[in-house]
Order: sequence, then C-alpha cells, then structure tokens
Amino acid sequence: MATAPTTVASETLTLPGPLQLDCGRQLDRVDVAYEAYGELSPARDNAVFVAHALTGDHYLASPHPITGKPGWWARMVGPGKPIDTNRFYVICANVLGSCMGSTGPASLAPDGKPYGMRFPVITIRDMVRAHVALLDALGIKRLHAVVGGSMGGMQALSLAANFPERASAALVLAATARHSAQNIAFHEVGRQAIMADSAWQDGDYYASGNRPEKGLAVARMAAHITYLSEAGLTGKFGRNLQDRAEKTFGFDADFQVESYLRYQGISFTDRFDANSYLYITRAMDYFDLAEEHGGYLANAFRTTKARFCLVSFDTDWLYPTAESRNIVHALNAAGAPVTFVELSAPYGHDSFLLEVPALDRVVTGFLDQ
Amino acid sequence: MATAPTTVASETLTLPGPLQLDCGRQLDRVDVAYEAYGELSPARDNAVFVAHALTGDHYLASPHPITGKPGWWARMVGPGKPIDTNRFYVICANVLGSCMGSTGPASLAPDGKPYGMRFPVITIRDMVRAHVALLDALGIKRLHAVVGGSMGGMQALSLAANFPERASAALVLAATARHSAQNIAFHEVGRQAIMADSAWQDGDYYASGNRPEKGLAVARMAAHITYLSEAGLTGKFGRNLQDRAEKTFGFDADFQVESYLRYQGISFTDRFDANSYLYITRAMDYFDLAEEHGGYLANAFRTTKARFCLVSFDTDWLYPTAESRNIVHALNAAGAPVTFVELSAPYGHDSFLLEVPALDRVVTGFLDQ
Repeated sequence: MATAPTTVASETLTLPGPLQLDCGRQLDRVDVAYEAYGELSPARDNAVFVAHALTGDHYLASPHPITGKPGWWARMVGPGKPIDTNRFYVICANVLGSCMGSTGPASLAPDGKPYGMRFPVITIRDMVRAHVALLDALGIKRLHAVVGGSMGGMQALSLAANFPERASAALVLAATARHSAQNIAFHEVGRQAIMADSAWQDGDYYASGNRPEKGLAVARMAAHITYLSEAGLTGKFGRNLQDRAEKTFGFDADFQVESYLRYQGISFTDRFDANSYLYITRAMDYFDLAEEHGGYLANAFRTTKARFCLVSFDTDWLYPTAESRNIVHALNAAGAPVTFVELSAPYGHDSFLLEVPALDRVVTGFLDQ
Repeated sequence: MATAPTTVASETLTLPGPLQLDCGRQLDRVDVAYEAYGELSPARDNAVFVAHALTGDHYLASPHPITGKPGWWARMVGPGKPIDTNRFYVICANVLGSCMGSTGPASLAPDGKPYGMRFPVITIRDMVRAHVALLDALGIKRLHAVVGGSMGGMQALSLAANFPERASAALVLAATARHSAQNIAFHEVGRQAIMADSAWQDGDYYASGNRPEKGLAVARMAAHITYLSEAGLTGKFGRNLQDRAEKTFGFDADFQVESYLRYQGISFTDRFDANSYLYITRAMDYFDLAEEHGGYLANAFRTTKARFCLVSFDTDWLYPTAESRNIVHALNAAGAPVTFVELSAPYGHDSFLLEVPALDRVVTGFLDQ
C-alpha cells in the first residue's frame, strides 16, 4: 500500500534571532526540529501545521528513530488519507522544551553545559512563537489549517488566538482552553515522582550517566491512566491475569493491567527526557487562554481569521466534552465560524490517536473546505 | 459539647492461635490493636464493628496519637450520634497488614527482625478473619451490625459473606465487590512510586533510619486525586494561586491544588508505613468477592443472616454507583434483604467521611432497626 507519505524535509532550523518568552526571559539560540510531507504549492497556501501532544514529536508520519514505530499519526497523514499529503504540505515541529531536536532543558546552554533546570519555564504560547518563526522561515504567511489534539489542540487555539492572521482554519481535538485543578493535580504527581527520584539531582543528571528513569516511568504510568477510559481499561484488561492461572500472592504484575502500565512507563523512558516532562507539563498547567486575554475567552478570538472545528470524545475524562463546549461558546460569542461534534469512541482521551473512522470523516470534511 | 465517646478499651489483643491465610501460609503470632466505645449489653447483642479504609486505623472516635487530630469518624460515632455509643458497643480494629498496632510488615517476625517483604500477601478475607478472632475473644457471637466505607465496605461484605452468622446487618458505603482495572492501575502507580524510591531497599528499610517517604508521598498524592471529585477540586481550588498574585514561572507549588496535594503526601508519611501501603493496596486489588464464591456474586450471600444497606455517592468515580448497584443485584438474586441509596454529595469518594447530613440519617435509620 502506497500510503506512507514522502518525507520532503527532516531538518532542524536554528531561528534567525532570539525568542522572547512569556516569563520575561529570552532564549538566544533556538533550534526547531521538524518534518514536512507533500509539496508546498507555488502560492504557499496549502500548508497544514500539525501540533503534537505532551509526549509526541515531529515524527508525525515517518518511523520514530528510537522506537522504530510508525509515526504517531501515520493513520491520519499520508497520500489519500484525511490529512492528504497529495494535496497538503504537512508540517510538524518538535515543541520548544521537548527533547527530540528542538531546544529544551537537555540542550546546551551558552556555557556549553545542558540547561537542566536553568531552562526557562515556557508556555504554550512560547511553543507557538517558535512554530510561527518556523513558518516565517519557510515563507508560509498563512496556514490552510492548524491541527492538533490534546496539547496540540492548545497550540492550535493559541496560534489562532495570538497570531490571528496565520491560519485559515483550526481543528482542535480533545482539548481544553485551560487546565483544570484535576489536570494540574495529575501533572503535579508526575513531577513529584520525577523529583523524588534520587537520580534526578535537581535536574543536573545529564553527565552522570544515571537518569531519573524510575521517577519518569511512574509519572508516565499515572498520566497514562488518564488517557484511557475506565470502560476501555475494563474491556481491554478487566481483572485478567498476566500469563498465569492463579494469583501469585506477591508483588509481580499479576494482572494484565499492571503489566501493561509497567511497560508503558519503562518504554517511555527510552525516548523521553525527564526534565522535558517537567517543563512541558508545567506549560500545560499554565495554559489558560482566557487569562491571557483579560479573563474572557471570547476576547481571545475577536480578531482571528480562522474557522474552527472542535471535536471531543464521549469517554474522554481528561478533557471532557464540557471543555470543548466552553470553547465553542466563546467562539460563538466572538462571532467566529465554528462547528463542533462529540464523537463516540471507547478509548478515552487517546481516541484522537486511534482508529475512529468518524474522526477521519470529520478531518477530511473540515480540511476540504 | 459532650459528644466525644468514652473509650472503654484501647488495647492490643494477641490472638490465641495462629491465623491461617488465603495465600496458604499462616501467621503464628497476630496482634490486633483495637478501640471500643460504649458498653457491651449483658446479652452481648449491641456490638457494632466499624471497619476502616486503606489508610485508616482504629482511632475511630478518639484523637490520633501521631497527628493529634480527632478520630477519623468522630462526626459519626459518639453519644447521640448516628452510631450512638449510648446504645451500641462500637469496636474498630486496625487491619492486619497495617502499621498502627496490628501485625503487619513493620512488625517483628519470629526471627526478631521486621518482616518487611517477607510478610505474607494478605487478603480482605484475612483481615476479616482477624476481626472475627477479636470478636471471639470479646465473646461477641453476632454483631448488631458491621459498618464500613471504601475498603471498610469490602470487609463488611466479606464478613457478611464468609461468616454468615456473625452479623445481623451490614452497612456498606462507597464500596465495591471487586477492584476494577482502573482501580488496580492507580494502586500499581502507588506501589511503583514506593518501590522506585531508593530508600525502599526492597522493603528492608526499618533499621536504616531512612524510610521511602518520597515514594510514599507520591503514592498518596496519586491516590488522593481519586478520592475527590473533579467538580469538588474545581470548587475548592480551581486555578487559584497559592499565596501569590502571579505565576512564578518556576516549579514551586504555584497553584493551591499543588500545595494541597504536596501537603497530603508529606503529612501521610508521618503516620503510615510504606510496606503496609504495598500490602493493603495489594489486598484491595485481589478483592473479588464473586471469584471467592464460584464466580457468582449472588453465591456469596446465599447463607448470610444479615440485612444490608448499600450507599453510593453520585460524585464517587473511584467506586461509582454502578458498583453498589451490582452488589444490590446480587443480594436481590440471593434473596437477602437490602436497601440502597445513591446520595448526592460534592466530595467524591471521600463523601462517606465528610459532612453529608443525608448519610447521617441513613446510618441512624438503618442501625435503629
């Protein structure tokens, strides 16, 4: 099947100037690692920017260099797929603060040593600033669409709100306009798990050869539960035992769900930096699009040129449908064109990444306009 | 206000013989720490046994010796209160495996050293076996009622099912007849957090002077989120900042919910043993009352002499109402008398411990019969 898109660029751009940040500091040198698929039209008007989630990266539709697995949205992006690389020039960039090529806490500071916790605390808007700088470098004045799920949806909203001329459309999946107390609480558990790991060493672990893998694995496990639905976990695992007929009366992973979670935790540490996890979760917790715009979410969208599509999933308890509806109300109040659908899917928050044919139809239809 | 009950016993009973366990092993010496309030009637027929939850203890209605706080159910137990110590002889025992006086992993094994992870993996039914041995020692053949919330509710169900002559009534609050995949998953995160702490030392930390407090605090934080409702967290904390006007762009507890969770985690380590946390969560995960009775929950209740009252809370997402309803269906199928109510309260799973006047009326009415 000729469904894998051709990667036309897998590059790292060093921004031409310093990046000013919400915290008041600036980063003098910022690298942005990105991939692109498809062909940019002569008018440069067919670009679709896909923003990734917390633990994602720019390996959107090409194999991941560490895990060897297909790109995280290979099912959605490619020739003839909903984000059709025969029609669109599709770009995905590793976010600022991450660890797959863009500048983050594991990068070298001007003194030649890794930033560690000297890296500035960044925001979702700072990530978007880096994306816009990339678009500038690529000569793309306005996107056909910005697309993202979860934290990617936050970036899509932030781009449409803060750079109102830069996107003709925003497709926002399983997202929220601000982190709730419960969202913050789960992230704080993850951060404390990392910081409790004696290998963390106040974030200064890069030269030690000993990374806080145990803490990062626990953080990932806690977060992973929030990505799945209770019914989905029950359907997939229930109380089934793992490769045994009887409980062992011990602390091995007797239950399949334990074994699965442990695997999720451990495998994550192969590809992710613990300090990046701290910084990116912090950026998500700080995200409050209304607060950035005088306390009224509608104000965020007064000048946007984008039309919007919001999608939520009925089993998503991390960012439930009410969060999307809240955004839709604000868009209505701002007079922005918006369509909204709650899709039924059993996978919880992760539904946007998984096999949900109804989502494919929504994405295809919205980008087609 | 003369509402504090008189503690008539605060003792530790050493069981007269060994305790046979579900795992096949036995414990030769078992201590059971308990408190009792009120007066046992000459006919010994007015005893109410209250079973505590995961992190509870027998300081039911008297101040906790470590924290100095009132007993964990002081609002419910006392003269003239729903569990009226003027009428009932109220007993609460620290569960097997815990750390407040009953035998657990911190206790000394026959070789004179703490058990640590040599302690046998116990079950909810094993805890109940120890309670029944205590009732035997106190000369109580049949309880007026067994009462419990959360893991206490599991013990109440297990006692009514496995010792069908020993209770005339069972009051089961915010409980479940089996742990779901999501319940197991959250506990597994907690256990992995403890085991990831370098101070844990495979459970052999008692002599080191260095306990796995950081891991235990993370475990408590993760669990604590599941005890509260999303709406409750939003109502109590929202995105309010902690003692500051602006975000600090750092990793301090900027948000009140972070500060609250950190406090919950750290303060817990003053009064709880990390290995006990491992063993008791394991017992809860293993709990499946149907599995113990041939795979049919109704079978568990075929011979019980108890009448039942089940109470769930509409905001409890740890053991939601469907779990109680499942038990009610089984009781109906077994022909056992049962009443059931879902109460509305904003506090999530913890509602059974908090100010819910409707619960007081249910408890009063049910025990009055």
